[in-house]
Order: sequence, then C-alpha cells, then structure tokens
Amino acid sequence: MPIDLTEFSDATNIALEESSYCVVAICGPDGPDVGYKGSTQVFDRDHLSYWERTRGQHLANLRSDSRVAVMYFNRERGKYLRMYGRAELHEEGPVRDEIMARSQRELT
Amino acid sequence: MPIDLTEFSDATNIALEESSYCVVAICGPDGPDVGYKGSTQVFDRDHLSYWERTRGQHLANLRSDSRVAVMYFNRERGKYLRMYGRAELHEEGPVRDEIMARSQRELT
Repeated sequence: MPIDLTEFSDATNIALEESSYCVVAICGPDGPDVGYKGSTQVFDRDHLSYWERTRGQHLANLRSDSRVAVMYFNRERGKYLRMYGRAELHEEGPVRDEIMARSQRELT
Repeated sequence: MPIDLTEFSDATNIALEESSYCVVAICGPDGPDVGYKGSTQVFDRDHLSYWERTRGQHLANLRSDSRVAVMYFNRERGKYLRMYGRAELHEEGPVRDEIMARSQRELT
C-alpha cells in the first residue's frame, strides 16, 4: 500500500527553519553521491520534491540513473526517515513552476 | 596530491557531541542508500572510519560495491565536506579493534 507522505509534511516542509535538511543520495557512473537539499518538501501524498539549484553533478547523475534515496532526521521530533524512489526531472512546465514557487517561499 | 584528512579531525571527531553526524552514501544493487554514521572519524591522514553497528543492508551493499561518499556539514563551523573513496571492511584484527575502541570512547 502506498504511504501517504503528507503525514511527514509538517516535519519536512519546515526543515530549513529547523536546520533538519533532507539528504538526497544518488548513484552516478563514478559511484555514490550525496548532498543536502534544503528545499525538499512533501509535494503531494505520493511525491517529494526539491529544487535543483546548482544544476551540477547531481542533475547529471540523475539523468543516467534516476534512483534516489532521501533521508530526514530530527532528534527533537524523534523522526528518522529514509525513503527510496525514482526521480522525475521537470525542467519546464507547471510542476517545475510550482516547485520553484514553493522553494522560494521556503527560502525567504 | 592526497589530502591530509587530519585537518578535519577536530570537526568530525566530535560530530556526535555537536549533532553534526557524518552521512555515508553507497550504491546497492537496488540503488542508492544513505545513513547517518555517528561514529565516523578521521582514522589517520588518509582514512576515515566508522563502526558498522547494525550490520544490515549497508554492510551487505558494501560487500557488492565498496564505493562510498561521505558528507559532513556544520553551519557554525562553516564546513560542508564531501569525500569520495572506497570502503575497506575490517571484520577482525587490530584495525577493527581500534575503530571499536574509538567509537566506544565517542559514545560514552
């Protein structure tokens, strides 16, 4: 049964304020790579989203292997989540615009 | 030229106390996996170490693909490090014993 991700929205969607940044790990051609993605949010009940700010190696790697692992930890909330899935790249269109809008809201 | 890791010892070796746990990412047969490894330390100038407490999926994955990415972040220290290498498994012998001893010291 799919998990309803919105139960985690409270935690992940204020991760920036709480300094509990989500971590995204991917497999590139040269091995694993990992980074904090401060804009990670629960996009809807079935999807997480993040805004790829740097457009660097992580993006290049996702083009060759879309599998991702996402980790969230916050000791005060007693939450340690690891989620596994596949990334969809939205480089134009309404989903991209919505992710950008939400990320800017988070960052201001 | 190899980097002398000991310049990071101050930060990583008290990461537990500062709640700046290192993150280890690996590539398993089913894709990337990632976890906080609170026992990560600078072992010597050329090596990081961590104590594999759970002996679970991460260990199984490292047996099939030894490539690892390690990340450290601490905002107050202004340090965001990502290091890439290959894991060596020490399941017995003096290196294992030394890593265990250091990890226990950190955790008590």
